Amino acid sequence: MKLFYDTLLSHRSIRKYKKRPVPDRILNKILSAGTRASSSGNMQPYSIIVTTDEKLKEELLPAHFNQSMVTEAPVLLTFCADFHRMRMWLEQNDAPENFDNFMSFMIGSIDATLASQNVALAAEAEGLGICFMGTTLASNKEISRILKLPKHVVPVVGFSLGYPDEMPELRDRLNLEAIVHKDIYQDYSREEITKIYKEKEEEGMKRYKSNPDLKEMIQKTGVNNLAQVYTKVKYTKESHIKYSEDVFSCLEKQGFLN
Amino acid sequence: MKLFYDTLLSHRSIRKYKKRPVPDRILNKILSAGTRASSSGNMQPYSIIVTTDEKLKEELLPAHFNQSMVTEAPVLLTFCADFHRMRMWLEQNDAPENFDNFMSFMIGSIDATLASQNVALAAEAEGLGICFMGTTLASNKEISRILKLPKHVVPVVGFSLGYPDEMPELRDRLNLEAIVHKDIYQDYSREEITKIYKEKEEEGMKRYKSNPDLKEMIQKTGVNNLAQVYTKVKYTKESHIKYSEDVFSCLEKQGFLN
Repeated sequence: MKLFYDTLLSHRSIRKYKKRPVPDRILNKILSAGTRASSSGNMQPYSIIVTTDEKLKEELLPAHFNQSMVTEAPVLLTFCADFHRMRMWLEQNDAPENFDNFMSFMIGSIDATLASQNVALAAEAEGLGICFMGTTLASNKEISRILKLPKHVVPVVGFSLGYPDEMPELRDRLNLEAIVHKDIYQDYSREEITKIYKEKEEEGMKRYKSNPDLKEMIQKTGVNNLAQVYTKVKYTKESHIKYSEDVFSCLEKQGFLN
Repeated sequence: MKLFYDTLLSHRSIRKYKKRPVPDRILNKILSAGTRASSSGNMQPYSIIVTTDEKLKEELLPAHFNQSMVTEAPVLLTFCADFHRMRMWLEQNDAPENFDNFMSFMIGSIDATLASQNVALAAEAEGLGICFMGTTLASNKEISRILKLPKHVVPVVGFSLGYPDEMPELRDRLNLEAIVHKDIYQDYSREEITKIYKEKEEEGMKRYKSNPDLKEMIQKTGVNNLAQVYTKVKYTKESHIKYSEDVFSCLEKQGFLN
């Protein structure tokens, strides 16, 4: 059995997996650990979709922007905000229905995310690897269709899961002082911002230049530094405005904007 | 040092704390564990506000619906989606600004929540106790004002932290089969819903009837079962519609709806 901090401090995203499947016994153990996470009013307003079917993973691939791990990992986990189950129970017990509004989505979203982190850590303690996919949110309308989610269920976070076939270096993180504020928000000076991001800039540019696709994009768009990589190449305003509209449209369709 | 699953499986919400403060060394250790959680594009778009000042905790008390642990716990942690820090860096590096839209809020919100779960687990591994407070989200506009958050920073989740002065029983959880779906969403029959919630109903009503305030509310409103407690007493549609409006209003004010 692993010591606690060994697992907590050694997360890296795993994108290459062995073909070896994840035994049901292990899968159930790590998913059970997920259900022990905190939950608002102990409602557990989330569902976990465990996708191992090859055809379904192929179908999900474009929604996950064709990341190869979607089909190469033995398991995909999709954590959804889910008030459908609870609303069925309310209806059967003559209780007024609720949980079809934005607040309810946020509660389900937070609880699904807390559970997902427990499952991720339990998986890593078992020698498995994971990689969260932000595409779960960006493409949540399309994923809802493929996974046949009923109203009041919306994908929020998800990750690939399997036995690692790589062991990348630990990624850089900002210093704790950059993240933590004493008592109230302590705003940053320009000098502090320069200092906070210095190491990240060096590590980041090295990393992106070693990735052939990104290197080409960086040259084509003429970006000069890591900050520009983030908003000229990786996360443009246009793409984020589109994703914002898509996510709202999914929330509306799934009945969370009443 | 604790074994991994001992911590992961033994979370209970702690609402009564000893007066003993949390040493800085322990606080920094558990906050550092938070920063090792997964983060979208490794942007770490979150901040953690560590509030120990007695006056500030008094000021936050009504925003947290007067839960006594807000002033009695030695520490309050407020995890915020934060793109303010990153946008300062973008501006200083001549990069197009982004991250002032709903998608960016959601990314920050998910990353803040993942980090919060790491901090919660690290705290519990150190013998500390925590209790998440959904009021962090419901009152995020008022909390933003008190904690002096700049634009593009929004409170998402938070918890009280300290050495436990109680050790409540583990709470009931739904069976794993109720939460997990094989490949795609497996919808529930009426019989399955009845079975899924049976144990919860018994545990829940016992629990609520042992709480004098809730017992009175239950009698006054004439509710007959746990489902009705949830939406006639605890989470009414009216309250959730108001919180939805409040959270949207906070997102707009803090610059996340462009």
